Amino acid sequence: MDSMNGTDNVPETATLKIKAFFESAPPLKDAAEIETKLKEFVDRNSSSSENGKINRVVCVTSGGTTVPLEKRCVRYIDNFSSGHRGAASTEYFLKAGYSVIFLYRRGTCQPFCRSLPDDPLLECFTSTDHSSIQVDPSHAEVVKRAISENRSAVNGGFLLKLPFTTIFEYLQILRLIAVSLRSLGPSAMFYLAAAVSDFYVPWESMTVHKIQSGSGPLDMRLAQVPKMLYVLRNEWAPVAFCISFKLETDTDILLGKADMALKKYKMHMVVANELSTRKEEVIVVTEQEQITVCRDKTQAGADVEDPLTTLVVDRHSAYIKHSDA
Amino acid sequence: MDSMNGTDNVPETATLKIKAFFESAPPLKDAAEIETKLKEFVDRNSSSSENGKINRVVCVTSGGTTVPLEKRCVRYIDNFSSGHRGAASTEYFLKAGYSVIFLYRRGTCQPFCRSLPDDPLLECFTSTDHSSIQVDPSHAEVVKRAISENRSAVNGGFLLKLPFTTIFEYLQILRLIAVSLRSLGPSAMFYLAAAVSDFYVPWESMTVHKIQSGSGPLDMRLAQVPKMLYVLRNEWAPVAFCISFKLETDTDILLGKADMALKKYKMHMVVANELSTRKEEVIVVTEQEQITVCRDKTQAGADVEDPLTTLVVDRHSAYIKHSDA
Repeated sequence: MDSMNGTDNVPETATLKIKAFFESAPPLKDAAEIETKLKEFVDRNSSSSENGKINRVVCVTSGGTTVPLEKRCVRYIDNFSSGHRGAASTEYFLKAGYSVIFLYRRGTCQPFCRSLPDDPLLECFTSTDHSSIQVDPSHAEVVKRAISENRSAVNGGFLLKLPFTTIFEYLQILRLIAVSLRSLGPSAMFYLAAAVSDFYVPWESMTVHKIQSGSGPLDMRLAQVPKMLYVLRNEWAPVAFCISFKLETDTDILLGKADMALKKYKMHMVVANELSTRKEEVIVVTEQEQITVCRDKTQAGADVEDPLTTLVVDRHSAYIKHSDA
Repeated sequence: MDSMNGTDNVPETATLKIKAFFESAPPLKDAAEIETKLKEFVDRNSSSSENGKINRVVCVTSGGTTVPLEKRCVRYIDNFSSGHRGAASTEYFLKAGYSVIFLYRRGTCQPFCRSLPDDPLLECFTSTDHSSIQVDPSHAEVVKRAISENRSAVNGGFLLKLPFTTIFEYLQILRLIAVSLRSLGPSAMFYLAAAVSDFYVPWESMTVHKIQSGSGPLDMRLAQVPKMLYVLRNEWAPVAFCISFKLETDTDILLGKADMALKKYKMHMVVANELSTRKEEVIVVTEQEQITVCRDKTQAGADVEDPLTTLVVDRHSAYIKHSDA
């Protein structure tokens, strides 16, 4: 859902707008802690490489960003996203040998937890008495798998999870990640599956207090979020392999918008998906081709993220090889 | 956050607006299932009463409602609410012998789970190998308590949980609950802690597809949600004991608005709370008095919901006694 089109045809205008966005944004509270975690993660993945080859690292963004409507925030605009795509893709990237920075919206789907009910603690466990609890037999396998695979990825240093809520937090953390991954060159990848707000209320023009009802309808004017994909590719991480996502509800305009994003922001791949069929198929748009990727309907429980990440890893390999040459 | 003020001074206008709201709302998908659950719950609580006295039942609403901005919804306006107040109050009402209908926003805080981390399954458990998992000793007590107390309340028939997401779902389910609790007379209570949207986009005027960015700023006009507290008190559940909540960020207008809600919607109590101090104290406004309720600061972990629910139960007892007389 990243804003892909727009009227910013002059790069300088885009850069100025982005500068203004960051200058007016409320500062990230735990920036120092995030930077420390990122440094450790990148260092570990640079030094632990075998045969002098750098480990591959992918930043997967997942879930929707919010736009506060008041500074002392009671109301906000949110983007619908369960985070299922990002969580599933993270699992497949880990399986393919990548280390993953999972930049996710608080409360959305976590890797290895896709098959669990909404409230797994209360739904999957029973207690015979107050001193002992046990997993329901029907959920035992998925619960054990979720806990053990998550622990092994996090404790092994292959999975770094960073949460966000607002558009301001998301973009500031994404910038920190991009800058910290620069040292990995083409081995770094961005897989931008998060549903990022297109419109926002600039912090300096935001009302302090809760907007009052009672005086008739509410009129709101929202500004466009500046196009961050442009600076990500051109300034923050110019050598990384970049994949963005384009979600629409109207198939008639979907491919045109995906193609525009590819050209305008120089993405390496754009994954076009339509809201109602997004779990069945996506169309991957590259400079040379359009590839329809479908889930394997002959296999129960097969998902579209499995073949999608296989394709992405394959193209990333070619990109690294090409960069080395 | 229920809309409390407004221009609807003529009851007929309010009733007409509410009728129009429900007629244009997308119909509740699982209405029949909810009605069945409610009937069973109310029947059980009518028949299981001791000494011919009717069991007390409270409907606690919790978490924020959303307002979709598109029919094929990608974006929505949300109300900030963790659901902590509703979850905590539910625990105390159960302890006080009430049966509770917990009408909550999907994904928000659940009763008995307040002390758990955000993602309890992944945070509180470890696995030694793939075949066995265990609770971290540091979390063992709260995890066991959460699971056993939730199970005992749900399986014992004292706690019925009903989830909602949109304002349309919330108000339709609230109406079903109110109608089903009528048979309990003054023994029924409404404790409306949910953060209910004040503004919405009427379903019939809502755009079908995702709103396009790229053509400059977005202008939106939102209509006021009709004042449901009025019909709740006057039509849906005229004999029930009703408590609403008023959240503001500006203390200067808080008590005035709470008082207005009390008078205009004939609430029995209005709990006024200010965003930044809401976990420390609230002011309970009744026709006769204003009572400041604070958490016991001398006790570690004490919360404001403990004395608040004690006061509410006390006043509800007096109300029932008065109704019997």
